[in-house]
Amino acid sequence: MTNPRGKLYLVPNTLDFGCAPGSEPELQDVLPLGVIRIAARLGHWVAENAKTTRAFLKRVDAVVPLAQKVQALAIVELPRAQKGAPKLAPPKLAPLLAAALQGHDMGLISEAGLPAVADPGSDLVQAAHELGIEVIALPGPSSLLLALAASGLNGQSFAFVGYLPVEATARCARIRELEALSSRQAQTQLMIETPYRNEALLAALIMNLEAATELSVSCGLTMPQAYSRTATVAQWRAGTHRLPTDVPVVFSLLASK
Amino acid sequence: MTNPRGKLYLVPNTLDFGCAPGSEPELQDVLPLGVIRIAARLGHWVAENAKTTRAFLKRVDAVVPLAQKVQALAIVELPRAQKGAPKLAPPKLAPLLAAALQGHDMGLISEAGLPAVADPGSDLVQAAHELGIEVIALPGPSSLLLALAASGLNGQSFAFVGYLPVEATARCARIRELEALSSRQAQTQLMIETPYRNEALLAALIMNLEAATELSVSCGLTMPQAYSRTATVAQWRAGTHRLPTDVPVVFSLLASK
Repeated sequence: MTNPRGKLYLVPNTLDFGCAPGSEPELQDVLPLGVIRIAARLGHWVAENAKTTRAFLKRVDAVVPLAQKVQALAIVELPRAQKGAPKLAPPKLAPLLAAALQGHDMGLISEAGLPAVADPGSDLVQAAHELGIEVIALPGPSSLLLALAASGLNGQSFAFVGYLPVEATARCARIRELEALSSRQAQTQLMIETPYRNEALLAALIMNLEAATELSVSCGLTMPQAYSRTATVAQWRAGTHRLPTDVPVVFSLLASK
Repeated sequence: MTNPRGKLYLVPNTLDFGCAPGSEPELQDVLPLGVIRIAARLGHWVAENAKTTRAFLKRVDAVVPLAQKVQALAIVELPRAQKGAPKLAPPKLAPLLAAALQGHDMGLISEAGLPAVADPGSDLVQAAHELGIEVIALPGPSSLLLALAASGLNGQSFAFVGYLPVEATARCARIRELEALSSRQAQTQLMIETPYRNEALLAALIMNLEAATELSVSCGLTMPQAYSRTATVAQWRAGTHRLPTDVPVVFSLLASK
């Protein structure tokens, strides 16, 4: 008996979300043609944001014509997580996967990078597993792993910890906790920040970390203006630093033993 | 004054290393055309393995003709880390970057996936930063992040911990330590194993983890036979499981609070 269910494809997006128009790389510079081809034929989507998904699909259409017009595609948005509310149980998400249960392949996409990694979507993927829907993650850019590779810090053991607390005392305590963990486990710790707070986070890291700790900052990866800088906190203290507020920035630290 | 140095490109490789010949995906199915174009013009390489790099470059040549014949390329192998020996200090690696210091762009490549992530190369990247050589990580497939996305486990906080100890008592202790850490931090823990030990690791995880812990196994990502399965340990215990020994496998766990 063949499985009549469709598959759930996790479709990577580019990393230029929110960047100045005109500074985007070509789609084929950052996504494999095979991925663009799959995206072009999918008629059913679950998206972090329907509007940016339509914009993405127009870029796809310019490389590989879409099987259906953008207007004809079924694009449903993921329910937004309410702060403090319990996460949605997989059964609540099953209706979003109805097309797959009826035999149609579906796409899951976020606003930037891989869905379900530092982005919404993992609850839907879990629901797909529970419904026996095959999940296929397609390769594409991840700012986290590109930043880690470009940092030169330990890539054999690393953790992504998301956002740090905003409140100063809690943020300082968290920075020291991550540094202690990094030292104990020889583990690189990666974090991100809301763009307009990037400089404040860099300042807090420089102020609170030990002088010998390695600190890396990667900005605008995959874009023309991309750069990565890795130096000890002592070296960072010796200069002044501006960070862009219109491109993704990833911070990484590795404490000495 | 313009910077006369070349750049160090971190070039992703495919994930089909060691797989049965004929089962490899097309290069354009897994790597962006922009990345293939850059690889085709680089004349100087530092590689985990020179032979597999030449094989990779022949696949590149079939899509975008190489600027020079493969035989004419300078491909230098990374020194292998000696077990127990201290890692090489960046100054020792500087000679490998001589071409960049002379103004030539260079490529760093490993046998599979992104260089310097769960693979050698980070020491060379750090040496590049110290020499003022610009480092540019190019997007491509990472089995770790594809497995994480496909698992449906927490992608907002995760850690890659590499290999577990081989000795049974130490392995069991490490599994319980990772489960406790996962529960405390709500952090997905990812690990890999030498292929012929994949089934032994799965058995050890099923035996030692709590029944309610979520366990995910992803095999052969980006390949035709790819699959991901996520279930509770109790569900894994209810079946028997064979794992392939000729494709990469990534294991992920997330303990309940």
